[in-house]
Amino acid sequence: MSMEGNAIVAQSGGPTAVINASACGVIQEAMKTDAITGVFAGHNGVLGVLNEDIFDLGQEDPDQIELLKSSPSSALGSCRYKLKDLQSSRADYERILEVFRAHDIHYFFYIGGNDSMDTAQKLSQLADEEDWPLIVMGVPKTIDNDLAGTDHCPGYGSVAKYNATIAMEAGRDTEALYTHDTATVMETMGRNAGWIAAACGVAHRSPEDAPHLVYLPEIPFSIERFVADCKKVYNDIGRVFVVVGEGLNDGEGNYVAEQGGQFGKDAFGHTQLGGVAETLRDVVQEEVGIKCRYIKMGTAQRNGIHFASRTDRDEAYEVGRRAVQHAAEGTSGLMVTLERKSAAPYQFDTGLVELDLVANGEKMVPREFINEAGNGITQAMVDYVSPLMQGEVDIRIGDDGLPVYTRFARHNLEKKCPARE
Amino acid sequence: MSMEGNAIVAQSGGPTAVINASACGVIQEAMKTDAITGVFAGHNGVLGVLNEDIFDLGQEDPDQIELLKSSPSSALGSCRYKLKDLQSSRADYERILEVFRAHDIHYFFYIGGNDSMDTAQKLSQLADEEDWPLIVMGVPKTIDNDLAGTDHCPGYGSVAKYNATIAMEAGRDTEALYTHDTATVMETMGRNAGWIAAACGVAHRSPEDAPHLVYLPEIPFSIERFVADCKKVYNDIGRVFVVVGEGLNDGEGNYVAEQGGQFGKDAFGHTQLGGVAETLRDVVQEEVGIKCRYIKMGTAQRNGIHFASRTDRDEAYEVGRRAVQHAAEGTSGLMVTLERKSAAPYQFDTGLVELDLVANGEKMVPREFINEAGNGITQAMVDYVSPLMQGEVDIRIGDDGLPVYTRFARHNLEKKCPARE
Repeated sequence: MSMEGNAIVAQSGGPTAVINASACGVIQEAMKTDAITGVFAGHNGVLGVLNEDIFDLGQEDPDQIELLKSSPSSALGSCRYKLKDLQSSRADYERILEVFRAHDIHYFFYIGGNDSMDTAQKLSQLADEEDWPLIVMGVPKTIDNDLAGTDHCPGYGSVAKYNATIAMEAGRDTEALYTHDTATVMETMGRNAGWIAAACGVAHRSPEDAPHLVYLPEIPFSIERFVADCKKVYNDIGRVFVVVGEGLNDGEGNYVAEQGGQFGKDAFGHTQLGGVAETLRDVVQEEVGIKCRYIKMGTAQRNGIHFASRTDRDEAYEVGRRAVQHAAEGTSGLMVTLERKSAAPYQFDTGLVELDLVANGEKMVPREFINEAGNGITQAMVDYVSPLMQGEVDIRIGDDGLPVYTRFARHNLEKKCPARE
Repeated sequence: MSMEGNAIVAQSGGPTAVINASACGVIQEAMKTDAITGVFAGHNGVLGVLNEDIFDLGQEDPDQIELLKSSPSSALGSCRYKLKDLQSSRADYERILEVFRAHDIHYFFYIGGNDSMDTAQKLSQLADEEDWPLIVMGVPKTIDNDLAGTDHCPGYGSVAKYNATIAMEAGRDTEALYTHDTATVMETMGRNAGWIAAACGVAHRSPEDAPHLVYLPEIPFSIERFVADCKKVYNDIGRVFVVVGEGLNDGEGNYVAEQGGQFGKDAFGHTQLGGVAETLRDVVQEEVGIKCRYIKMGTAQRNGIHFASRTDRDEAYEVGRRAVQHAAEGTSGLMVTLERKSAAPYQFDTGLVELDLVANGEKMVPREFINEAGNGITQAMVDYVSPLMQGEVDIRIGDDGLPVYTRFARHNLEKKCPARE
């Protein structure tokens, strides 16, 4: 079954190095799909649909679309606008359908994480109820790698490779200046999931190699054990490089970043200030008694296309492309997944999963990927993530020596629906 | 004139992405120089000489030496051990000569910044006085680019390219999530010189492109103007990405990083805590009234060989190589420099400068490279730095997808001098 109509693609949530590659997969495949007439973009995710702020990708330079494959962040714009259930957010869902009807949109491709899949699922449900033929396909995206129903998530391999490389390079700094700068705390993103921090552990190829300690939010964090671990490493090799996930907590809802509970005043009675990296830097200085630096890559880590994983980028493109192919065959209400067909040599294929399952799931780092002491990773984690970090992405470079990334002209569609107040 | 004897090379001060390329230039050239018999390394800079902790590069795998060209940080080890004048540090200088005599070392190649050139110069002087034939050559190194006597300094082009790329990529993040994460403050290294922060300004190719504001230590910093600038940019384009040098100060010795003077309690009466990035993040949140993130790459920025400048790397190699060639011809007491022979197309040559001049000089960003408002750069700065950021460095990659960097076996020379107490 194939339905004629326009398609819209939108990006949601935090950017990644390769979410644009997924958009590129959707756009390029949609443009050569007969049933799809126009290919549009919602500017800033579903907000663009709600505000009828939609631009026509058919009017963009095809070279700028191709350039999406090596451009970080969300070139279509993104949002964190969360639609709730059909009852409480009904006006929003109705509005989306109104805009879809006005522009003859029958295909909706939403690239995002679990909240986006929830929105996509409910929209699909409402379209059914209201008899608007709509094919909805989810395309997975998150650096956190915590999406259920997929072996891993596009965006993760790149942030993993980049952060691990940073740990390796900055670790060499700690090694060089053995009389100064002998300790460093590096904070990674990942919220409650430790996947990104865990990937840094791959750089620890030998006892010499940083990071010497890795702490994940999956393991309740203790300042005392942290201090003891740091002291031991420092005594053994004269330096210590630590990677910590931003979501470190004590397992009882107290976060280091928020100075919650026991972290408000640390185990040694000091009041800590600042985020995880700053807090633990202070702890190292005061309790281990050595100068300590910290590294907070912040949003730079999730946009590092300049040293992204080629495997991740190619998979990101592929899930976008496959979403359109499935849609053209009449499939709807599903998200494209990545399945690991073979570990060595690594081979993947795409699969499909119900949007519901993704919307309500959350995948943490399994205990067997973390060492017994809870301060490092196991070979199982190395085996899991290494295939996802293979290869680099070719970047277009300008005359000034710096990268060149996509920027769209954004020819907006004429507005046909009365503006929302 | 050519003198037979062993050579020693050492690295000093903060690591860079390409200081190992300079070491490689020295080592590979020294190994094919007839007059030079053995090629040794001082482990951890001049400390290795003082402690007679010296290893034989002739016993290292030549492939590990070649790998120096794409390995960050200081593979020979570094130090911040400062030797003072000949009078007050005479024992140290004597000790160095004692070790040199014991190992028949007649060539000393010191890769470092102005303090290192000062040490090299004084050592050369003492060797003359004590009739130990010693050729001393300086090889420039510093990410700060503040060395006098050279057009630019190896290490700078790479940190410039990498930081500018980070500003570009994280800037796209600020652009994507226009309802969240609309402001970011990124802190760069560079101490009192603004060269690194200024290079980030090249990424601001259009009003859309981050960084929208760049503040250098060369211009007295004012919180009021900073707030006004941020408000203006935010009102104009709905976001603001700021790059700040770590050495921001008010021109009267009060540093933002140290919460000195007026920065202890900012102009609006708030007490600020933390470094430059955290402090200004708080100012943006409180005074501009928007959520603000910050990025502190820390030591990661100076070790980013994974996206270094090929031009910088090649020049770093060349200054090392030329130092040996000059030494073999009997030249001593000079540092190799980089001279810009032609702007477009960019062509460089090496030159020579007295160690004294480097030891006592400091090169700041000239006023004409900074815009009138003191919150951005001019075309002159773009023209200066762009040629230095050209090309990328090929990195060796391991099976796990991550880079592979040099690690030496370090076969130490037998100790011949009584240990210092």
